[in-house]
Amino acid sequence: MNIEPTLSIRVPCRDFVGQYIANRYKTTVCPNDETDPTRMLLELCVDGFYVAPGQVHTDLFKRGMCCNYGPLGVELKKNLLEQWWSSIKRSRTQVFGISTLTTGDEKSGEGNPSLDVERLNQLLDADEFNKAQRTQRILMLLRQSTSLRTNLLQGALEQYISWLELVKRRLPFGLAETGLSFQPDGSGSRAEATYASLVWFCSPRSSSQWLDHWARLRLQWWRKFALAPSEFSSRDVQVDELQEGASRGVKIVYSFPWGQETLENLWSLGDSDLLQTHGGVRAKIQCFDGQKLVVPHVISVVSNMDRSMMAYMHNSLQLMKKHDGKQKLYRRKVLKLHPVLAPVKVALDMGRGATLEQRQVCDGLLQEFLDAGISAWPGSIDITSSAEKLNTKYDEMGVLFTMVIDENTLESGVLQVRSRDTTIRESKHISEVKGFLLRYMRAAHNM
Amino acid sequence: MNIEPTLSIRVPCRDFVGQYIANRYKTTVCPNDETDPTRMLLELCVDGFYVAPGQVHTDLFKRGMCCNYGPLGVELKKNLLEQWWSSIKRSRTQVFGISTLTTGDEKSGEGNPSLDVERLNQLLDADEFNKAQRTQRILMLLRQSTSLRTNLLQGALEQYISWLELVKRRLPFGLAETGLSFQPDGSGSRAEATYASLVWFCSPRSSSQWLDHWARLRLQWWRKFALAPSEFSSRDVQVDELQEGASRGVKIVYSFPWGQETLENLWSLGDSDLLQTHGGVRAKIQCFDGQKLVVPHVISVVSNMDRSMMAYMHNSLQLMKKHDGKQKLYRRKVLKLHPVLAPVKVALDMGRGATLEQRQVCDGLLQEFLDAGISAWPGSIDITSSAEKLNTKYDEMGVLFTMVIDENTLESGVLQVRSRDTTIRESKHISEVKGFLLRYMRAAHNM
Repeated sequence: MNIEPTLSIRVPCRDFVGQYIANRYKTTVCPNDETDPTRMLLELCVDGFYVAPGQVHTDLFKRGMCCNYGPLGVELKKNLLEQWWSSIKRSRTQVFGISTLTTGDEKSGEGNPSLDVERLNQLLDADEFNKAQRTQRILMLLRQSTSLRTNLLQGALEQYISWLELVKRRLPFGLAETGLSFQPDGSGSRAEATYASLVWFCSPRSSSQWLDHWARLRLQWWRKFALAPSEFSSRDVQVDELQEGASRGVKIVYSFPWGQETLENLWSLGDSDLLQTHGGVRAKIQCFDGQKLVVPHVISVVSNMDRSMMAYMHNSLQLMKKHDGKQKLYRRKVLKLHPVLAPVKVALDMGRGATLEQRQVCDGLLQEFLDAGISAWPGSIDITSSAEKLNTKYDEMGVLFTMVIDENTLESGVLQVRSRDTTIRESKHISEVKGFLLRYMRAAHNM
Repeated sequence: MNIEPTLSIRVPCRDFVGQYIANRYKTTVCPNDETDPTRMLLELCVDGFYVAPGQVHTDLFKRGMCCNYGPLGVELKKNLLEQWWSSIKRSRTQVFGISTLTTGDEKSGEGNPSLDVERLNQLLDADEFNKAQRTQRILMLLRQSTSLRTNLLQGALEQYISWLELVKRRLPFGLAETGLSFQPDGSGSRAEATYASLVWFCSPRSSSQWLDHWARLRLQWWRKFALAPSEFSSRDVQVDELQEGASRGVKIVYSFPWGQETLENLWSLGDSDLLQTHGGVRAKIQCFDGQKLVVPHVISVVSNMDRSMMAYMHNSLQLMKKHDGKQKLYRRKVLKLHPVLAPVKVALDMGRGATLEQRQVCDGLLQEFLDAGISAWPGSIDITSSAEKLNTKYDEMGVLFTMVIDENTLESGVLQVRSRDTTIRESKHISEVKGFLLRYMRAAHNM
């Protein structure tokens, strides 16, 4: 059996786990790949327990929307949101988290504030419709009218005043929020997606520099976890594409097989939205910018976290040609997600025909990993598959390490540790493996 | 200045930070407290930046619903959800996370599946209403009809089949999910709350033992983070209170000043909901229970995480009488949240009239803490308040430690560390403080 690397990117190794991490970048691309890459990616999402089976879910996921996620999808999203959150918090001390309601309108307390009552009355009065048409139109109106938020920006603008006391009315500062928001889709129903939003309030004098600052920082962040960083890129938004009210904009996009899609929008919004939200009362919203009282300018930085899951999955999926003993060629799919993002860090296996003692050692070690905060996969749920089949499965799931507890482990305390990225097996003593994984994860965090 | 403890509970100290942790339990209750405890709690939520200002938010929060949260509320909820998640995952290896849509109906793909079209037609046909009445009734119908989920159970029951392959059709296993769900409230609009749900599929033979198992484990969990654990209690649900389809139930309740409220419901639901969800096709949903193929029984364990935030805030709020220099009596409010839950672990202050050098040291240390994953508060945003006033504020926010970087720090590298729970100040070298906090947090996690 041999694996043929055809493209190799070297990265500097800083520590003892450098050998593993560098190997993430040994990339093999199958040149004559007849499979549709989009279909393969979506199949992998389902096979690897990222996305629930069913066309409706893979369709939603491909469109950058929330779908029903499986155990690995849930963990990947959690890891991504955690990284986003800590990066935003660490980038500036004046960033504060908030959370606002997804439903309702706090001013009126009504459930459907945007429901157009006038429109409804017109429909009820109109003579040109028969009964069925009228019912249809009313239903359509309802689906369009919504009490569900369509962005996170508006909530932050409304909450701006509440947190002025906290920052002693001093610029700049930011309000960060992650959560669902809801977009009406073509059919009149609504699709949900998870967004991560930073609304940054700054001096009008420096708003353009701040936009550049955040665009630079954010692109760095996206690329930090990428296997092929160049697939993530940023570009200035043309004047005719600008969101209403925006004077400048930057997009961070990802090159999917079917074209570029936007992962993140950065807008320089001026002060008009903030003024409008607070009824134009300048005195209420003014802040010190170090020199004088000003109405701040608003920079909005918002990422679609569902689409970013797919971007990282696509970015880290590698196809490798592999020959088995009989020189039969087949393809190995490996999801080389960044160690920090990988939903499962280690899978624990026992092999077929495991004894009760093996199972006990396996369960004990699993518990030790979970207690240490290491996301571990209970291989003991599948005791019928061969080791080879399990490794193929774990590679598709993006599991960093596989450990096998065999009969030998019971005698000598030594187990086999296989790395996803190198496919190399090493023997380690059972007392060392937790420490090894913790050091590995610490190094990966500092990469 | 002296603080009079009137009630002291001792806990075993296991390590070097035991002294700090034990002091969390030195409780002083003011006996003649004329302030309404509910009002005081809600005021504290706003003053401590947990809940956004405004009656509408404190009202929602008191009712155990989502409201607009401030920076500390966001962190507290995150910490709570993280603890719930890791506890559920650690408790059993066969627990898998899922996430399901909050909107829509996956079968029909419609936005408003539950909208009662027949009812709408009746309203359109009815002669007994005038125009205004008809519009009103239609609006009411809309608000009642919803495409938003009202619980997390149904999603897990629907997803059950998708994850059978994952567990090789072997019982028991569980599907865990956290997220928003939406309850119609009295006014016809909808209130949202964050729930954490475990749906446990098990053999019919052992479902009653599993209910007891989870009820015991969950109560332990609630009490683990409590200052006064006895305020959290569990009780069997009476037959007339049982949820439809449930054969048994257990409630975990908290004693608020205004009465008991339910934090968590545990239901033993039999197999009827699962059968109904899958059209009664037994062959599709059967699993091995170790002996034979059975239709599993369902245990539902669901907690309201918004209400649990309030429970822990109430549980950890302590009032202490304090005399100032002139023997004037005033009350000190301290939010002694468990170190694991406390949203801010350390606040960094500089005192009034800080030099540029002090600020640089302060910012550097703050960055060091944030990089190490320690939630730190930038005291530099408030440089006008006195140290005494800041400490009062930090106690209300539940900040574990306050560190002051003064002129002396620049010369000797020594800073003052004040503990929330002991109010004792200690000198520590700046090179030690990060290690101290990390050891403290590790010990708190293992408590």
